[in-house]
Amino acid sequence: MQNAVCGLAAWMSCALAAIVCSAPPALAQTLPGSGPARVQPAVEQWSIFELVLRGSTEGNPFDVQLSAKFTLGQRAIEARGFYDGQGVWRVRFMPPEPGVWTCQTSSDLPELSGRSGHVTCTKASTPGNHGPVVVRNTYHFAYADGTPFHPITTTLYGWVNQQSEALQEQTLASLRELPFNRIRMMVLPIAWSQDNVPRFFPFQQKEDQSWEFARFDPRFFQAIEKRLGQLRDMGIEAELILFHNRDGGRTGFDRMPESADDRYVRYVVARFSAYRNVWWSLANEFDAIRTKRDADWDRFFQIIQSEDPYGHLRSVHQMRRYYDFFKPWVTHLSVQSELGVTGFGRPVIYRQLSRKPVIFDEPKYEGDIPDGWGRLSGEEMVYRFWVATVGGTYAAHGETFASEPGVRWISRGGKLVGQSPQRIAFLKQILATAPAEGLTPIEPQEQTQGIAGQHGKYYLIYFGKSSPTEWTLQLPRGRARGGTRFRIDVLDTWNMTITPLDQVATIGEEPPLKITLPGKPYIALRIQRID
Amino acid sequence: MQNAVCGLAAWMSCALAAIVCSAPPALAQTLPGSGPARVQPAVEQWSIFELVLRGSTEGNPFDVQLSAKFTLGQRAIEARGFYDGQGVWRVRFMPPEPGVWTCQTSSDLPELSGRSGHVTCTKASTPGNHGPVVVRNTYHFAYADGTPFHPITTTLYGWVNQQSEALQEQTLASLRELPFNRIRMMVLPIAWSQDNVPRFFPFQQKEDQSWEFARFDPRFFQAIEKRLGQLRDMGIEAELILFHNRDGGRTGFDRMPESADDRYVRYVVARFSAYRNVWWSLANEFDAIRTKRDADWDRFFQIIQSEDPYGHLRSVHQMRRYYDFFKPWVTHLSVQSELGVTGFGRPVIYRQLSRKPVIFDEPKYEGDIPDGWGRLSGEEMVYRFWVATVGGTYAAHGETFASEPGVRWISRGGKLVGQSPQRIAFLKQILATAPAEGLTPIEPQEQTQGIAGQHGKYYLIYFGKSSPTEWTLQLPRGRARGGTRFRIDVLDTWNMTITPLDQVATIGEEPPLKITLPGKPYIALRIQRID
Repeated sequence: MQNAVCGLAAWMSCALAAIVCSAPPALAQTLPGSGPARVQPAVEQWSIFELVLRGSTEGNPFDVQLSAKFTLGQRAIEARGFYDGQGVWRVRFMPPEPGVWTCQTSSDLPELSGRSGHVTCTKASTPGNHGPVVVRNTYHFAYADGTPFHPITTTLYGWVNQQSEALQEQTLASLRELPFNRIRMMVLPIAWSQDNVPRFFPFQQKEDQSWEFARFDPRFFQAIEKRLGQLRDMGIEAELILFHNRDGGRTGFDRMPESADDRYVRYVVARFSAYRNVWWSLANEFDAIRTKRDADWDRFFQIIQSEDPYGHLRSVHQMRRYYDFFKPWVTHLSVQSELGVTGFGRPVIYRQLSRKPVIFDEPKYEGDIPDGWGRLSGEEMVYRFWVATVGGTYAAHGETFASEPGVRWISRGGKLVGQSPQRIAFLKQILATAPAEGLTPIEPQEQTQGIAGQHGKYYLIYFGKSSPTEWTLQLPRGRARGGTRFRIDVLDTWNMTITPLDQVATIGEEPPLKITLPGKPYIALRIQRID
Repeated sequence: MQNAVCGLAAWMSCALAAIVCSAPPALAQTLPGSGPARVQPAVEQWSIFELVLRGSTEGNPFDVQLSAKFTLGQRAIEARGFYDGQGVWRVRFMPPEPGVWTCQTSSDLPELSGRSGHVTCTKASTPGNHGPVVVRNTYHFAYADGTPFHPITTTLYGWVNQQSEALQEQTLASLRELPFNRIRMMVLPIAWSQDNVPRFFPFQQKEDQSWEFARFDPRFFQAIEKRLGQLRDMGIEAELILFHNRDGGRTGFDRMPESADDRYVRYVVARFSAYRNVWWSLANEFDAIRTKRDADWDRFFQIIQSEDPYGHLRSVHQMRRYYDFFKPWVTHLSVQSELGVTGFGRPVIYRQLSRKPVIFDEPKYEGDIPDGWGRLSGEEMVYRFWVATVGGTYAAHGETFASEPGVRWISRGGKLVGQSPQRIAFLKQILATAPAEGLTPIEPQEQTQGIAGQHGKYYLIYFGKSSPTEWTLQLPRGRARGGTRFRIDVLDTWNMTITPLDQVATIGEEPPLKITLPGKPYIALRIQRID
């Protein structure tokens, strides 16, 4: 994170951003500790520039309205500020474009208002900084700079609120070795045991232990921000799940008054939206949260859409009943379904009905717990990833082994012991060779195999649980110039081997090419145009 | 149809309804031809009572506002009237409940306003009169009297606007011999040849041949009503498709001004909604009608919801892009999809996403035309009906044989020559034995067969294109009392045979029952509890 202090000393310890932040001299004189404007190093595109302001904490400083308008030519971004405790307010800005942005604050606290300056933003140059992820080609994703993004997701609901910093560090260390480039995590704590009480909670507590919803505990959010920044720097997108009812009823955060809900959503958005790796998920199993109506979810979406100036991806995850995904603020589907990824052709239906990217964020998890949702074999977990892939959609991983003491990745993080992650890494490696447009399911959708690709360029054929020993390959005519030649690899998606064939496939060839296959399950063919 | 004339001679030729329709004496005196109130025979529940009124035709009589409020105890139904030409206005009322309903008209034409009387409605007694169809048990349908309704649909887009009355009569004669209990038909004419110009059009024409959208041609609608009544009396539901773009651009009815659209929708609803067999479909392939936005479709739905006092079923049919079926005015899905009914488990996804009844209204058609959508074999058409059925959904039939001169059932009606209808009749016969709650898909949804039923009562297992010679039947434990016994029939869905097995299946039996099957495709098992 990069800080800039408007006429004040740097408050945070990280590098300073390039800004001449000149408070109007008249006003500056009235501020304690205010001094001359300072020139700071440049801030990189899609990283965070932070304005730090001090003011009077009379009343409830969380009630202070503060925002800063950043302007570059015809483009203006209004970023909300937030109170971070200790008399300090911050406004974070993720510059989407290189150039010299001017900034101007407004606030109902006079000493925070009317501060102006400029921020020099340089072109993204840090390896892995491709900007935030956006929807691309209707059903797929890409970073803002155009680099394709194939979500390879794992589920880490409670990791960020674990009491043990060491466990959190272990989770990060695990992620460094794993293929995942997106994690799903709850903002609010999930159920905890006595030896794992969250260190912080989002709200301050009154003497009677009840929550003071109008006063946040900044430490709770700072701890999350630290992890968000680390994930970002590791190239991992963080889907932040704002509500859930998975704390065993302890906090009551799933049944706050409407005003507290809204205040919480606004605060989270003000704090986190400048992290380029943030995705918003309104809830885990929104339909299980009985205290909220659809109008509440609509309102949360609208608040986020209005207050997040970067338009980070937005969705909501269901248990059984789906939220109306036609609504314009839903950018993609975050589906819980086993059905959708256990038969070829099925994922395509979700695409057709929604015309949005589809992520099967809970297709059940690898593990051995008694609950049906957490006892998939590694093979089955990987199979579901592949069915999703050749359906032009995406799947998510989760792990729940009861047999490994203390390890329950989806809840706490730590280490993975399952067999699927390395195969998911293999899939990721294959996806890296796919066309930038993303994989489009190819008609007709048979029940025995799935085919996706881009006509005339690339085909991926997955045979799932069937074990063919031979496959007659007839590439579709009419979609590419006859005579176009393709090289073929046989992929063993479980044993992670890529076996190039001597044979070459040609559009329109007669008789069609017969390919010998290993007669095992989980085989795929990759067919790439020879240029 | 039953008429009543408020102090006037009966205008239509059918039987008169029971009504004492007493115009206020003072007003009655001012009306030409008004006389004493008359007592008429009773009108049957869910049939049509019609109020006939005469008035001045100065100005545009189609602009006259007219409605009648029918009241029975705490229940009131406001029915819109319409101008039917020749100085006659009508208000139609489908009494939903037996009893003596009072009625009172209001209008901006004084002589039509303030007429009052009462209508005696008797309990439905005509065989086949079960009332209008409503949604039942979330995913299914029933008549208002509770009788289950399994839609067995055929497509007859243009039949009602055929020039030849004889052809229309032939279509009706065909329908009398066919299993279909629901037809999909366009209100507006579809493309026609020179020898088949529609006799009437919905609007009057100006001298320059342009349409006078503010003046309807009642004959057009009277011709449709005649057919609607005949269908109703044959027990056939009529889905009226209000808009389409399938007339080759001849009429321009797909690109009328908004005011003309709305006026047309209101007029259609005022005329037709008292027919108990009416369903509303806003469009065939709404997304192909480029001149309308989603806001238009929303508005049409809202007009219908507001002006149809009986709440007839409402949907809209898509080509590719789906209308937001979460919207509250959509009662069920009317889907165009081949994908959805060509793999087990796929139809279930539409149910899960919508939580509404799903009808695959265009899964492609039986026929031999070059277009891909009209060249299914009979086997394939029937297969799709069964895949839909064991997915807890419904499919629709259509026929397009180019090889049979003059026969193009979906466009014109006439006679069917395909092989599917009698097999669809066989399916209908099987469905008649299904539980009244409807068929619920049973988990897990395998790729090799589909299972639906009601746990502990009834199971229907369909093997589709696979040809098993043996099947191990393990009825799910835990959903019904152990030891419950079931009788089994082997159904050959193509050859239309029902073969009862000597074996009896029992919940929880070990080893599970092995059933010998004929090793042919299109086999199903029907498993019914022995009470």
